[in-house]
Amino acid sequence: MTIVYKASAERAGQWAAAFARQAPDVPFRIWPDVGDPASVEYLLLWQPPERIVETFPNLKMLFSVGAGVDQLDFDTLPPDLPVVRMLEPGIAESMAEFACMATLMLHRDMADYIDQQRRRQWREIQVRAGSDRRVGILGLGQLGQASLEMLRPFGFRLSGWNRSPRQIEGVACFTGQEELPAFLVQADILICLLPLTEATRGILDAKLFGMLPRGAALINVGRGGHLVEADLLAALESGQLSSAMIDVLEPEPPAPEHPFWQHPRIVMTPHIASMTRPESGAAFVLETIERHRRGLPIEGLVSRSRSY
Amino acid sequence: MTIVYKASAERAGQWAAAFARQAPDVPFRIWPDVGDPASVEYLLLWQPPERIVETFPNLKMLFSVGAGVDQLDFDTLPPDLPVVRMLEPGIAESMAEFACMATLMLHRDMADYIDQQRRRQWREIQVRAGSDRRVGILGLGQLGQASLEMLRPFGFRLSGWNRSPRQIEGVACFTGQEELPAFLVQADILICLLPLTEATRGILDAKLFGMLPRGAALINVGRGGHLVEADLLAALESGQLSSAMIDVLEPEPPAPEHPFWQHPRIVMTPHIASMTRPESGAAFVLETIERHRRGLPIEGLVSRSRSY
Repeated sequence: MTIVYKASAERAGQWAAAFARQAPDVPFRIWPDVGDPASVEYLLLWQPPERIVETFPNLKMLFSVGAGVDQLDFDTLPPDLPVVRMLEPGIAESMAEFACMATLMLHRDMADYIDQQRRRQWREIQVRAGSDRRVGILGLGQLGQASLEMLRPFGFRLSGWNRSPRQIEGVACFTGQEELPAFLVQADILICLLPLTEATRGILDAKLFGMLPRGAALINVGRGGHLVEADLLAALESGQLSSAMIDVLEPEPPAPEHPFWQHPRIVMTPHIASMTRPESGAAFVLETIERHRRGLPIEGLVSRSRSY
Repeated sequence: MTIVYKASAERAGQWAAAFARQAPDVPFRIWPDVGDPASVEYLLLWQPPERIVETFPNLKMLFSVGAGVDQLDFDTLPPDLPVVRMLEPGIAESMAEFACMATLMLHRDMADYIDQQRRRQWREIQVRAGSDRRVGILGLGQLGQASLEMLRPFGFRLSGWNRSPRQIEGVACFTGQEELPAFLVQADILICLLPLTEATRGILDAKLFGMLPRGAALINVGRGGHLVEADLLAALESGQLSSAMIDVLEPEPPAPEHPFWQHPRIVMTPHIASMTRPESGAAFVLETIERHRRGLPIEGLVSRSRSY
């Protein structure tokens, strides 16, 4: 069995080293140097190669290097090929850390202060207690739940919204389309941690922003496709939203003339909220392969109907 | 007994309202409208008036509105006048929140990303695990200890330095001048939370920066007087320090031509890390007055020999 890696060239060496340490006997190859295609059973990738079935006739499983699989076109993949999204703990840890940092930054008016520094202005904004601030998370999967745990000690009033019901102690949980408005009216800081699917594309739009309390702030650490950019600009212009932290865009990187670069109320980061760590990522891949061989249930197996 | 307030005019109304709610029978006046000076027994202030003894012959106690008392010139105060610094819980809560946010920002390379956004650059920096980052706090008083508690869940390796010995579970504690170098060599992110005294003025200088690991980052939420600004600029220039978050300066606000405003590796905020909350501040003042009347020990009483 051979594992073929086909993703960021810069990080290929780190992945190779991690597999070499943890499974020195397993052949690990970096695309396009795949060796004998017939021996390739596992792919670890961001974008699949063309004609995947013809290229790798004995493929058993496909791993996404990221937590999401929205980059994959499932119509080009064999319908019975198991697709697994990355569930290594470093992704959730770095995401929760970033979501917490971004929430604190908006809670403590850092978008204003960054802009003030640029304009050489020294003006204090009255601090609000954490218990005065309502933080709501869209998407209560692994990443949303890990983020809530990190936010807990700061005393924020926490809530979350999810497609299917969730129960989390100390968190007001809302379910499904019909409870979305009730969730939104009480979210001073809204964090998008949804998967990108046909149902969630463009969900961060004028209609949704209009349901938030006036002056609310947005954190998008989901996908660029969740956000209607023109609607965000209009909401910031009107004051309906006060500020935003945007980690994901579509496409990435944004064009040099993109309005977010120099926007005084937007803090933008280059899709770094969460990053797969090769060491724990390799461990997850190896364990999943082992479970698959033994016929045990597999975590992170993508449902073709839900697309996540 | 009358309490006279002499500090920020903008916040005077909030203080008056807090005292009116909590102690409607206690006369509370806002400088310079002090009424009968002979009835004034308590001052709540940032800067004392001139000729304080002649002005208020029956003064019993002086409260600083802030956690520090370095703004006071003790030579101009009666030697037996009790001076109390503000120990209301909002100060520690907002400081710990800010210290945690600033640490996460430096840990997650936000100084770089803010600068990149300004230059329209989209470039990821590999995330490091929290457990790979060593965070050290200078000053383990109430604010330092509250900050350590907030930092704990993120998995950072925590240490602290203090003039007198401290024992804090899970935190490597260093004591006194002779252990300062051993503390510094292991601090990737250094947070200054010291009081400003003759002994600590200018402590953040080239010599101290030179003992930190190369590429370390600095958070100054102590006082402007702790920092030798030219030494910070040189350390950022040489790469000995990677970035800094600076909340306090001397004087404040800095001049329009001050080099920190536009520095690509400095994030500057207008002395807002911690702010006294009038509601809990008034409660602290009233409780302290009551304890003083009954002859009970008083928290926050300033030692003239230590100056804090």
